[in-house]
Amino acid sequence: MSIAAAGAATRDHEFDRDTAVVPRPGEPGAYAIDLSEGWTIISALNGGYLLSVVGRALGQALPHHDPLTITAHYLTASRPGPAVIRTQLVRGGRTLSNGQASLFQRDDSGQEVERIRVIAAYGDLDALSAEVRTAARPPRMPSYEECVSGEEAPDGGPVSGSTALLDRLDLRIDPATAGWAMGAPSGAGRIRGWLGFADGRDHDPLSLLFAADALPPTAFDLGLKGWTPTLELTVHVRSRPAPGPLRVSLTTRNLAGGLMEEDGEVWDSADRLVAQSRQLARAPRG
Amino acid sequence: MSIAAAGAATRDHEFDRDTAVVPRPGEPGAYAIDLSEGWTIISALNGGYLLSVVGRALGQALPHHDPLTITAHYLTASRPGPAVIRTQLVRGGRTLSNGQASLFQRDDSGQEVERIRVIAAYGDLDALSAEVRTAARPPRMPSYEECVSGEEAPDGGPVSGSTALLDRLDLRIDPATAGWAMGAPSGAGRIRGWLGFADGRDHDPLSLLFAADALPPTAFDLGLKGWTPTLELTVHVRSRPAPGPLRVSLTTRNLAGGLMEEDGEVWDSADRLVAQSRQLARAPRG
Repeated sequence: MSIAAAGAATRDHEFDRDTAVVPRPGEPGAYAIDLSEGWTIISALNGGYLLSVVGRALGQALPHHDPLTITAHYLTASRPGPAVIRTQLVRGGRTLSNGQASLFQRDDSGQEVERIRVIAAYGDLDALSAEVRTAARPPRMPSYEECVSGEEAPDGGPVSGSTALLDRLDLRIDPATAGWAMGAPSGAGRIRGWLGFADGRDHDPLSLLFAADALPPTAFDLGLKGWTPTLELTVHVRSRPAPGPLRVSLTTRNLAGGLMEEDGEVWDSADRLVAQSRQLARAPRG
Repeated sequence: MSIAAAGAATRDHEFDRDTAVVPRPGEPGAYAIDLSEGWTIISALNGGYLLSVVGRALGQALPHHDPLTITAHYLTASRPGPAVIRTQLVRGGRTLSNGQASLFQRDDSGQEVERIRVIAAYGDLDALSAEVRTAARPPRMPSYEECVSGEEAPDGGPVSGSTALLDRLDLRIDPATAGWAMGAPSGAGRIRGWLGFADGRDHDPLSLLFAADALPPTAFDLGLKGWTPTLELTVHVRSRPAPGPLRVSLTTRNLAGGLMEEDGEVWDSADRLVAQSRQLARAPRG
């Protein structure tokens, strides 16, 4: 494919178009973006989408371009519309760059408000050794064809609000973890599914940041309703993903004091563990 | 105990004395400390000790005092001696404060070098609801008496260097995960142990940050020798620990591309999961 054709193909994919950041003239390390309402769910922009936006800005600003470990603190609720991301090179090394970034939006009075703060280490996934020594096994789950799509859920699950995000996804949930959509959550705190993009875009290291927070929250499988606001989300990208849909497995073991962790594993079509994630979230009240 | 007596007791404990930070006059949010060589292992200061130092400064600087989630990026190697920690209140909320901090030391030319950068959310553990809904179970391991202390290892394990850290700990390793000390690692990538302080200090939320990175690295149980430098460490503190030694369980599942995750669980004497941790580290070459 020519470079021009590759550029056109990139522009044709919703995820690339909606995470595209534009350098701000005269402000080194700062990027502008219009956050797309296409990635809203219930009442808010998806946290994985926001992490991908900030991750993309860091990948452009830093000497290394692949996120290896990235942590976001969600400070205030982002809204569709204009935003600015300011990045900082914390330390540039030979094989690794450390960076920091914040995403800001203006409130009704025109005041800049910080939405997200991120610290990260970026590297070059292709330069890592090919050695793999792993005790991790892919999640046991039915084939893509045997899993259920969002459209099959009678009412979209235990919450009401925007489902725009679902239109961007090719998401198939393991029926064993989809009982909540029919009012019968398993109580185990697990959600597993196949995750592609509706427009056929393959995954890459950047979209793994999105994949780690794209499935319905494990709270639904615990029988809880409503919004699960993420306080902090960390994603480790362990390998460039092979083409094809990902398998994503989310688990919550410990809900305590109104907080819960959500552990994610992301596997590619070559049975490789391509990302690990953990977030700390407020448990829904319901 | 009177406040004066409590203060004296605190000063009498090595961990409190060696993490004590002193506000720098005329520089709001900045603290000075003399990093103690008592927390070195092999050739470097322990990463959990350094996280505790920065965590203590944040706990003093922020409106809320208990770490709920804290992430550190280790940029350059800290050394025993003077350091300064600069903290920033990122956002102060009713139940949560977000903060950032960096620890700096001067290099041989007198230039300030950043050692660690941290972002964190602090809250009030005692104000959280008492509700616990958990599928997590304490690690299966022998009693404290049946576990082995560091002194029983014939040569301190597969590395040489400082063992000062071990003198500060009351550490008993599960024999099933201590084979590496006798040249027979299990290969499973697990280390489990009981962790107290040698001087009898009980654990508190701050020392959980230390506990998450105080055991020998899982790399030893994988048969790898040498230093396992941490790139990033995140700790979630889920509850104030009950008195008595902790049980700490570390697991590495995926070593790939020269990087490995290390997942930690910290349990208190009341069988409560008091902290969860994950780090991304460079695998030793050996």
